[in-house]
Amino acid sequence: MKVVETVSGIRETLANMRTAPGKRLKVGFVPTMGYLHEGHQSLLSKAKAECDIVVLSIFVNPLQFGPNEDFDKYPRDSERDLRLAEQSGCDVVFMPSVQEMYPNPIRTSVSVKGVTERLCGASRPGHFDGVAAVVLKLFHIVQPDKAYFGLKDAQQVAVISQMVSDLNVPVDIVPCPILREADGLAMSSRNVYLSAEERREALVLSKALGMAERLAQEEGLTFEALRNKIEGEIRSTPLADIDYIEVLSYPELEPVDPSMETVSRTSDMIVALAVKFGKTRLIDNVILHRK
Amino acid sequence: MKVVETVSGIRETLANMRTAPGKRLKVGFVPTMGYLHEGHQSLLSKAKAECDIVVLSIFVNPLQFGPNEDFDKYPRDSERDLRLAEQSGCDVVFMPSVQEMYPNPIRTSVSVKGVTERLCGASRPGHFDGVAAVVLKLFHIVQPDKAYFGLKDAQQVAVISQMVSDLNVPVDIVPCPILREADGLAMSSRNVYLSAEERREALVLSKALGMAERLAQEEGLTFEALRNKIEGEIRSTPLADIDYIEVLSYPELEPVDPSMETVSRTSDMIVALAVKFGKTRLIDNVILHRK
Repeated sequence: MKVVETVSGIRETLANMRTAPGKRLKVGFVPTMGYLHEGHQSLLSKAKAECDIVVLSIFVNPLQFGPNEDFDKYPRDSERDLRLAEQSGCDVVFMPSVQEMYPNPIRTSVSVKGVTERLCGASRPGHFDGVAAVVLKLFHIVQPDKAYFGLKDAQQVAVISQMVSDLNVPVDIVPCPILREADGLAMSSRNVYLSAEERREALVLSKALGMAERLAQEEGLTFEALRNKIEGEIRSTPLADIDYIEVLSYPELEPVDPSMETVSRTSDMIVALAVKFGKTRLIDNVILHRK
Repeated sequence: MKVVETVSGIRETLANMRTAPGKRLKVGFVPTMGYLHEGHQSLLSKAKAECDIVVLSIFVNPLQFGPNEDFDKYPRDSERDLRLAEQSGCDVVFMPSVQEMYPNPIRTSVSVKGVTERLCGASRPGHFDGVAAVVLKLFHIVQPDKAYFGLKDAQQVAVISQMVSDLNVPVDIVPCPILREADGLAMSSRNVYLSAEERREALVLSKALGMAERLAQEEGLTFEALRNKIEGEIRSTPLADIDYIEVLSYPELEPVDPSMETVSRTSDMIVALAVKFGKTRLIDNVILHRK
């Protein structure tokens, strides 16, 4: 496995690897902020199965963190990351410095309207502009055929898919299922922040979303009722501090009239939530497929 | 010469042309709004000299026109364009419809701060966002090695260069000199709008810029004095209606203190202007290279 830290280095490495005699090799790309877990590893495995060359990037992107967010304390462990990447069959790791990615202050902004206005877009102003810019930069640097993203950040997948479609970026976006711990907690690099007690209480999120999936089978239940039941469940947990709970169309992420619509739906929906436990903000979601 | 109207078609055509056995062929790209003149042809010739495959795009981009601008009446003559393109050694013409480029309303905006705030960026709000988005789309569709732009739109070159650098777009931007008619008028597709009288009076622009070049040789002349002399020259022409005349650093397009600085300069400067003759708005500029 090769580890490359510069833009020119990764371009040269991939140019050389791509030129197999008589065959156009496919590059699969998994962009991450590092501190890998099994969720990331599942993306690498999928890329390995579908492509000839698997590239992982590890870059904690300052542009997508707000001034009071956790950029500085975001967990980093590149030695462990490289070990896990190699185990998952990764071929090349791109691990640039902030200086390498932003040698000068960036003057170009990339903004996706519509899908960024709700959920984390509302709670974290500017966050998705930072995500869009860094992902577009990484796509231009790596020039992958396919790129793999976890659905835990469902809104991120929606934003990137919209950008790729609007700007004709020559890459296929592959959304991949959320991976969960044995007890249901969605895997996240930020889980490491949780105290034992917070970790225990955070199970309410996957429990409430599981309940949402079951409730969605009932005829005649309105989205408002569904949302209220989820909220009630989470409010019963002392440490849970709700940022948002929303039921939206998927993948458009547009609101439905909560009192009118019933859950016997004609299109896919997403129940998405962000809840703080202590200082740690967790997100999770479930997609309710149309009946 | 191949003419292609769809995104999938141009991608397939170029993928086939690029795969020469044992060699990576270079693609040179000239994006235009059509109604070609010798300025465009000089870009095609340069691309032909430097690359293996020359691609021309012809697309009048609605996104870069304001509501009261000339999108509908912008001159179009694709038959003549194809003839001129073939004469200049062009290999492939990409000529998409508006529907093909914008099958759905575009939700992603690309905005370049700094270089867009003055000159045409100030006179034409949103213009450079539209330029940036369409050029980025075309780069993703054609994936050229080099792209050629005329310096008549010097600010456009600055905007695109900044975007390419900020977003790591894998393309070399090649700025090319302004071409002029025998009498000095900068070549432009919009010159066709001018009446005989307007055409005659519009010569004041190249005359004033030529004067600026000569004056810039003088020691001790301030930028303010230089600008005032140009303005005086243009104001003496009855039909000339000045939009802007600015002396800025090049390529940063940042203002200099006009009273303090003298023209014995230590960096490149640009004198850029936009002037209306009747309903036709013309732009022109000259770059004053540092002494």
